[in-house]
Amino acid sequence: MALNSSSVVMKLALFSSPDTASVDSITLFVLLLCACVLIGHLLEKSRWMTESVVAIIIGLFTGTIILMTTKGRSSHILVFDEELFFIYLLPPIIFNAGFQVKKKQFFRNFLAIILYGVVGSLISFLIVSLGSLQLFKSLDLDLMGLGDYFALGAVFSATDSVCTLQVLNQEETPLLYSLVFGEGVVNDATSVVLFNAIQKFDLSHITSANVLQFIGNFFYLFLASTFLGVVVGLLSAYVIKKLYIGRHSTDREIALMILMAYMSYMLAELLDLSGILTVFFCGIVMSHYTWHNVTENSRITSRHAFATFSFVSEIFIFLYVGMDALDMEKWKYASDSPWTLFGACGILLCLVLLGRAAFVFPLSFIANLFRKSKADKIAFKQQVVIWWAGLMRGAVSIALAYNKFTRKGHTQLQGNAIMITSTITVVLLTNVVGGLLTKPLIRSLLDPHKNGGDSVASDSFSSKTLPLLANGQGSESNIDTGNPIDSSQVVHHYWRRFDDSFMRPMFGGRGFVPVVPGSPEEGSSLH
Amino acid sequence: MALNSSSVVMKLALFSSPDTASVDSITLFVLLLCACVLIGHLLEKSRWMTESVVAIIIGLFTGTIILMTTKGRSSHILVFDEELFFIYLLPPIIFNAGFQVKKKQFFRNFLAIILYGVVGSLISFLIVSLGSLQLFKSLDLDLMGLGDYFALGAVFSATDSVCTLQVLNQEETPLLYSLVFGEGVVNDATSVVLFNAIQKFDLSHITSANVLQFIGNFFYLFLASTFLGVVVGLLSAYVIKKLYIGRHSTDREIALMILMAYMSYMLAELLDLSGILTVFFCGIVMSHYTWHNVTENSRITSRHAFATFSFVSEIFIFLYVGMDALDMEKWKYASDSPWTLFGACGILLCLVLLGRAAFVFPLSFIANLFRKSKADKIAFKQQVVIWWAGLMRGAVSIALAYNKFTRKGHTQLQGNAIMITSTITVVLLTNVVGGLLTKPLIRSLLDPHKNGGDSVASDSFSSKTLPLLANGQGSESNIDTGNPIDSSQVVHHYWRRFDDSFMRPMFGGRGFVPVVPGSPEEGSSLH
Repeated sequence: MALNSSSVVMKLALFSSPDTASVDSITLFVLLLCACVLIGHLLEKSRWMTESVVAIIIGLFTGTIILMTTKGRSSHILVFDEELFFIYLLPPIIFNAGFQVKKKQFFRNFLAIILYGVVGSLISFLIVSLGSLQLFKSLDLDLMGLGDYFALGAVFSATDSVCTLQVLNQEETPLLYSLVFGEGVVNDATSVVLFNAIQKFDLSHITSANVLQFIGNFFYLFLASTFLGVVVGLLSAYVIKKLYIGRHSTDREIALMILMAYMSYMLAELLDLSGILTVFFCGIVMSHYTWHNVTENSRITSRHAFATFSFVSEIFIFLYVGMDALDMEKWKYASDSPWTLFGACGILLCLVLLGRAAFVFPLSFIANLFRKSKADKIAFKQQVVIWWAGLMRGAVSIALAYNKFTRKGHTQLQGNAIMITSTITVVLLTNVVGGLLTKPLIRSLLDPHKNGGDSVASDSFSSKTLPLLANGQGSESNIDTGNPIDSSQVVHHYWRRFDDSFMRPMFGGRGFVPVVPGSPEEGSSLH
Repeated sequence: MALNSSSVVMKLALFSSPDTASVDSITLFVLLLCACVLIGHLLEKSRWMTESVVAIIIGLFTGTIILMTTKGRSSHILVFDEELFFIYLLPPIIFNAGFQVKKKQFFRNFLAIILYGVVGSLISFLIVSLGSLQLFKSLDLDLMGLGDYFALGAVFSATDSVCTLQVLNQEETPLLYSLVFGEGVVNDATSVVLFNAIQKFDLSHITSANVLQFIGNFFYLFLASTFLGVVVGLLSAYVIKKLYIGRHSTDREIALMILMAYMSYMLAELLDLSGILTVFFCGIVMSHYTWHNVTENSRITSRHAFATFSFVSEIFIFLYVGMDALDMEKWKYASDSPWTLFGACGILLCLVLLGRAAFVFPLSFIANLFRKSKADKIAFKQQVVIWWAGLMRGAVSIALAYNKFTRKGHTQLQGNAIMITSTITVVLLTNVVGGLLTKPLIRSLLDPHKNGGDSVASDSFSSKTLPLLANGQGSESNIDTGNPIDSSQVVHHYWRRFDDSFMRPMFGGRGFVPVVPGSPEEGSSLH
């Protein structure tokens, strides 16, 4: 995502001004977080609500109360700041996603994920940018220039991987989860990279050299970020294996895992790379190697602690989005021209729907060409779910929109105010509608009892009762069981051989047995 | 501790000015934290070093390098801010202490702990205040007034419970650990309450009514803070037991425990109570009830996650103290009169030594009067260890000194600069000397093989291999085994009866068996 390190004003939004934030706002926020956790738990049985919708509604409700008690002056207790989001809330969510993702599924679908995440985001970006450039003229909107439209394209091509986690279930629909969520992570990176590139790009001189440089830059970012994440992950595995820290202290192991994961993200930011990609791959490597080198207690603790961090960060974001949606300042400027706002929202929603359709179906067709077995192909019904589940826009969009269209959370220009309020409206609508309808949609389209394509049965190694062990355990050997072999399985076969003969002896991983101090083995391993 | 909610400028020190702090300072700090964890692990076998000394030394070393690269302009990458300390770093440390403390030991020694923590702190406070008032005259120090001397007394009567945790071992010397650590927590609260009271107190009109009001205020704070912590802890137990959240999600249980613990601290701050006391008792109640109501995975995770938070916060504090010790600004003002500084440090060190001796030995004598059995009495050698181990001054002293003698981390007055530099010097000296000598001192004075007074043997229910289960497990029934019964055991007996017949049915706790949904029991419990 490449936040420029010098431009980053590392001020926690919570604390940016002494009068708006104090002990009471933190207390209130913690109280609301508790309420979200509890109400989310109580509503879990109703298959319609998700935690994010609950948090948004509680946020809206609290915002209304604050608005009334402050007599319309303010609706939120904290000032939104994209640094709070990018430095503190996003890393745990993305790291946990990498840590808990089913690696086998992810890498098996790697081609499709990259297609959706990179090519798809570019298509969506172009459609939203060019579409809004054409259609906003009819609304008399005075955006500043070409850059604003392209920024809008980047803002609305960022699907929200956080929301996806809420509506898709890794156990029930592993293929869809892996595709939509994988796309979400890659796409987060793509859109932030696009957004930053556009900010620097000289749009008045588009030459082929510029475009080539842009593409080269993009691939450099992508590969360098991935590489950094893998290196830090392997380093953590090596250090923990070599020092066998768990002998003395589980806490030290967990502290080291957390600190090194966070360091990978911060290092990526420091080097102007995409921290999201880095920390995602760091999470994957840590769950493949490091996690197996620690004590049993550390394994349980790390799984659940990372999941908890991520869970609380997600609720925090949605709670805030709900509260901030009522911010009067933006609505005041925007409400002078309600029809423009209404039109802008409508246009953007249509463009988002269209932009996503324009890449999901064609790219699925291309991805299917590489999938040999019929059971493996992405069915049309599944494509519809992929299209729908990825429509949600979330905190990344909000953060980017704030970055582009406000100064420190405030805006004076009517055009910018309309952009902010449209973004908030689109995020709220896609989240509430998407959050309410996705689960029923999946059930009606892909009932596991009717349709064997992507059901629990196809994921026989998953275990609901023991999710800790489900990750990549078992079924590792189905390369030998006479299934039709396609290219991804061949790659996987060679990877397994490399992993077993070189990586695991070096970095530990599944089946790692710590060297008992003083045993002959330790002596020999030192020579 | 009663930070005034309106006066709290909730600005994270890390982020208080855009030029000094950025992505690179966070990255560097995370890197240093990793280094501390690793070096601490490697040096653990050497029984001399503690993690805190390692962190201080790494901090000093890094400070020197930063000082050289910035050509003497600055030695630290973060600006110390007492809010960062009181709002984010202290709560996890104290909560974890309450959560992991051996409750039986703590309550058995409750009288002695209160004597040391309240009466002892007052004695120490008076000796340091009045002693410095007398002795500083000879140094030509121009402190502002009587209030400054009393503030100094409060600053130096705050023993550091965090350091204590590093040098005393709960398993090896349970009695000493419980006494010194318990004193540390109560004493933290006492000194912060004293400090705040002095800030508001009109020292020119000391009347008996004022003094009575002061004492009444103190007891109110003490009891109200404890009560609040107990209530929030019980609430968390009740909610988790009633909703049986673990059925759906371990993460939700842990999130709820963390959020409610933090909420207890923030609520106490909001109500101008002592957050330290509140969160400590909240931790005790949570470990007695809530912890038993959650799933097995949540139990393991919560134990280790809380310990890890606490561990990282501690290292963070010491790393920072080391780095900040080299801050040039303070030394520049102080170095104009090196002999004054030298004298002030010497006087303060002597007063701290004397102030602690003046209460440990007399109060131990009083405490022993209430201890019937000979094996139970606090032996003279143990009193020496209590005196020595509590000499360390730490982050609480630094935070209070910064609060009183600087404005936003800067000072212009020579007297204030000397107070700050003396505080830093005393903290460094007591930590390094105390950290290095305490373990050898304990070994020479209280060798468990020579002396049965306070050894592993006397704590038969502790289990090093399974510390999770050691807490309060077993030996609960020794009231019935014919040991000589003293008053604390009678209290304990009645408490057990009350706990079993009223508290546990209501709030769960050890042996809690969740109601299986749909079973007849659930139906009856609803009526």
